[in-house]
Amino acid sequence: MANSKVAGPEIERLIQLLARLPGLGPRSARRAALQMIKKKEQLLVPLAEAMGVAVEKIGVCETCGTVDTTNPCAICTDPRRDQSMLIVVEDVADLWALERAAAVNARYHVLGGNLSPLDGIGPEDLNIDSLIERCRLGDISEVILAINATVEGQTTAHYIMDRLAGIEVNVTRLAHGVPVGGELDYLDEGTLAQALKARTQF
Amino acid sequence: MANSKVAGPEIERLIQLLARLPGLGPRSARRAALQMIKKKEQLLVPLAEAMGVAVEKIGVCETCGTVDTTNPCAICTDPRRDQSMLIVVEDVADLWALERAAAVNARYHVLGGNLSPLDGIGPEDLNIDSLIERCRLGDISEVILAINATVEGQTTAHYIMDRLAGIEVNVTRLAHGVPVGGELDYLDEGTLAQALKARTQF
Repeated sequence: MANSKVAGPEIERLIQLLARLPGLGPRSARRAALQMIKKKEQLLVPLAEAMGVAVEKIGVCETCGTVDTTNPCAICTDPRRDQSMLIVVEDVADLWALERAAAVNARYHVLGGNLSPLDGIGPEDLNIDSLIERCRLGDISEVILAINATVEGQTTAHYIMDRLAGIEVNVTRLAHGVPVGGELDYLDEGTLAQALKARTQF
Repeated sequence: MANSKVAGPEIERLIQLLARLPGLGPRSARRAALQMIKKKEQLLVPLAEAMGVAVEKIGVCETCGTVDTTNPCAICTDPRRDQSMLIVVEDVADLWALERAAAVNARYHVLGGNLSPLDGIGPEDLNIDSLIERCRLGDISEVILAINATVEGQTTAHYIMDRLAGIEVNVTRLAHGVPVGGELDYLDEGTLAQALKARTQF
């Protein structure tokens, strides 16, 4: 209450909205709002503009489920991408991470989550039907399941595997092993066992 | 570079601007941007609106130096505030913190920083002249220096003290002592010594 008197409801509302962002609490939202207001021309004005553009332009790609300013997205329409390979990810953030790694030049399919019966998330809540459809209709020869190595992720992976059973497509998954730069001492036994099993020629 | 291809320059620009906010790095800015885009109606749209309002309305109060949507600000024009008392703070954030504490019903004067010869910040870079002017012209009977207990803060406090020498006004400062809820074990010797010296009747 005291806070809302300080500088008018407009600033208070800005702080409250900022506090809803991941990684920002009420305190850091206040600092962020103040920083914006102080650096009005360098920060607040361009940020307000960028958000206005985002509101206007950004949507979900109907083909792969990622977010972009065009529909279909820039990746789906990129002719230089390998059209026969599809990388299945849980979330747009995973897609961005793989693109940053720039290790493969394929197209994607964003599931939008994982199967989780406890949370009431079934196959109909994810973009699985559209994935099967893409594999059935398109010239897809390989589907890479780049899904988190969690229980839910693996459940989802197995479900997709089952659904793809009748379709002529090679299904692969990411390798397990020691992270690059990782120290053995800090790794769990499961990862170490997998890394040993999948050892390669030096 | 790989990143900018992912989802168009508009999203990339939003992420870059968010990463300039205090408390957000490139990684959390990406998470924040994605969260906004996913929750477009609940988060991105209202945030864009709130920022648009902020760009349009928020400015600096010419009397006290705080930020508000009106000029003079809501605090300076509030008739219920004690007109004879002025709290001097370094920054708007400090003003907000004191307002949240709601311990005093006075008006403020925001210096906009501290004297710091090493960083080239002299008296002319701070709102000190306007403070002296307010004390000289207004019916101010007490000036409370709510300035950080750092070397720069104390230098600034002493400088203000000197400048106020000829003016009929009582200058006070915040008490030093044990923070409420604080444990003695974790306090520095300077604070403990001050707390002992300024002990009060139980």
